[in-house]
Amino acid sequence: MKSESLGIIEPKFFKFEENFELESGKILKGFEIIYETYGELNKDKSNAVLICHALSGNHHAAGYSHDEQDKSGWWNELIGPNKAFDTNKYFIVSLNNLGGCHGSSGPSSIDPETSQPFGKNFPLVTVKDWVKSQDLLRLHLGLDFWHAVAGGSLGGMQALQWAIDFEGHIKKSIVIAAAPKLSAQNIAFNEVARQAIVTDPDFDQGSYHPKRGLGLARMLGHITYLSEEMMKEKFGRDLKKENYEYGFDVEFEVESYLRYQADTFSDKFNAHTYLLMTKALDYFDPSRDYENDLNKALEKTTSDFLILSFSSDWRFSPERSKEIVNALVSSKKSVSYAEIKSYQGHDGFLFPDKRYVQSIKTFLKK
Amino acid sequence: MKSESLGIIEPKFFKFEENFELESGKILKGFEIIYETYGELNKDKSNAVLICHALSGNHHAAGYSHDEQDKSGWWNELIGPNKAFDTNKYFIVSLNNLGGCHGSSGPSSIDPETSQPFGKNFPLVTVKDWVKSQDLLRLHLGLDFWHAVAGGSLGGMQALQWAIDFEGHIKKSIVIAAAPKLSAQNIAFNEVARQAIVTDPDFDQGSYHPKRGLGLARMLGHITYLSEEMMKEKFGRDLKKENYEYGFDVEFEVESYLRYQADTFSDKFNAHTYLLMTKALDYFDPSRDYENDLNKALEKTTSDFLILSFSSDWRFSPERSKEIVNALVSSKKSVSYAEIKSYQGHDGFLFPDKRYVQSIKTFLKK
Repeated sequence: MKSESLGIIEPKFFKFEENFELESGKILKGFEIIYETYGELNKDKSNAVLICHALSGNHHAAGYSHDEQDKSGWWNELIGPNKAFDTNKYFIVSLNNLGGCHGSSGPSSIDPETSQPFGKNFPLVTVKDWVKSQDLLRLHLGLDFWHAVAGGSLGGMQALQWAIDFEGHIKKSIVIAAAPKLSAQNIAFNEVARQAIVTDPDFDQGSYHPKRGLGLARMLGHITYLSEEMMKEKFGRDLKKENYEYGFDVEFEVESYLRYQADTFSDKFNAHTYLLMTKALDYFDPSRDYENDLNKALEKTTSDFLILSFSSDWRFSPERSKEIVNALVSSKKSVSYAEIKSYQGHDGFLFPDKRYVQSIKTFLKK
Repeated sequence: MKSESLGIIEPKFFKFEENFELESGKILKGFEIIYETYGELNKDKSNAVLICHALSGNHHAAGYSHDEQDKSGWWNELIGPNKAFDTNKYFIVSLNNLGGCHGSSGPSSIDPETSQPFGKNFPLVTVKDWVKSQDLLRLHLGLDFWHAVAGGSLGGMQALQWAIDFEGHIKKSIVIAAAPKLSAQNIAFNEVARQAIVTDPDFDQGSYHPKRGLGLARMLGHITYLSEEMMKEKFGRDLKKENYEYGFDVEFEVESYLRYQADTFSDKFNAHTYLLMTKALDYFDPSRDYENDLNKALEKTTSDFLILSFSSDWRFSPERSKEIVNALVSSKKSVSYAEIKSYQGHDGFLFPDKRYVQSIKTFLKK
């Protein structure tokens, strides 16, 4: 375990036992949310920060867990003592979203009506649904407001939706490597991933674990998370062996890497959760309830905004982040923006670039 | 049938009955190549132009065929009377490459040793192998040289390899929307496509037609052929029905389009050919035989070069074309370059943009 680590974190549970109506109109008969906290809540309960996760993320954002004592949380580089989200100053809350597969109610949890896992019967949930459930978590924690809500990618979309849907209960919104809605190309990539899963014969034939399809989805996703330059630097055209073998075994290093990613991910992730997360991405469009006008959607927001993008991100490029910035500026909102120079592509939001960290620190403090 | 059309074209066949050694060291015991010609060969046999096709292309580049009287060849917009490749002036030859599935020897042709289709036993072929077989076609046609060899994407790579391998038999090389070799990202996309095919349970279980996997490969390929802006213009976030349905049926227009592409393509294309074409792309690297130095590879070339790229192409971006241009300039070769402004992405090379057409006409004439 490294120094400056938060050590082993015990997850907590929030059980909501009433009916929860989803955006789709369907009803969840209660739900459970797993979450972790880092740092201490101050006396006047004014230092709580909510962290929202992306497609394949979960509640375990920082420190270590009992299950994986050698692997830290997904945002451990940014959450901890003196880090971007400084646990000496803030009380950080990180949850697994509804529909996830790491402990919150989702396709892998047991449907009380059938005593079987929900599987594909778990209803589709949206970013609005998540934010609504996160607001119930806020109440459960006895908080009047979040000092900040922050996330990258799909997590950033939740931070944006928070500012719109619960403007009275959020002071600062940190929207990282996100877009105000998916483009046709973004949806297209998601659709290929979904088709890989749902056309896998194992999807519908009892085992409910389409490992092949989920692996393909992960490989494809992975390409879109990395920049072309990072792939070039990391793999180039390096061969596993000395020469071309003129066959279909792994020849290039990049093939080996992708197959490994596919294999490890598809062993542990739930395919229905993957499907559901990609649909939440596709559906995300906060302007939809406001005559398709993002300016209108942002009008009643009261929080300050920090919008961050990464120069080499081609999944949600800086141009997409600027669409959010422009709408905020048009709506005369308080907004700071920085494009972080990076070569890691969309994954840039996971790494503690100095300017990136400083932007978050300054924004949280001001 | 449209005016200015070449009408219905009868394909021709070239049968090579000797052993043909491939770059891999494997031997093809003879082969057959299907090809078409448009226009007339002049008296001194100095006006022949070879057209090379890309990944899913074939010999039927222009005019109509008996099978498809309502659908013209894949480059019909550029080949014909007064078009970029003017059939009033040039004798155009277009073939289906070895390993193809449209009439040349390939996985779908019959292996004389087993009386069954070759299927996955057809050996992997490379761009060098194709160029070598195209040179035999040249001899068969009684030509001393090609006035030009031209192609887009993988076709452009053949035009480049031609200039290197048979410098005495090519006057002009037209390399369109190509790269001097694939990047790690390019290989990664190909690998996902291949894994979609080879992990499809139907791949190895008798039917030898992994329709699902081939469809996924096509969907994915298709995304990389179109620019983000073209997808935005063509589909945006348009829905098939009025509202979100919160399910996995088609919701967005772009999903419908991709599923249709997958379905029609995978009904007619051979999966083994698809695998083999993607490997030919991965393997392509003319510098490999020249100490990984493209300048050295180009040193002995004697043809003039026209390199063309498309502004919105992100599969083989203008930057990749410029790598070829820069190596040609370093080697003091005669090279013209144009970046064609386009919004169609990689597919731009299929459309008769005015400046694009004029660049080709001028270069063929000069």
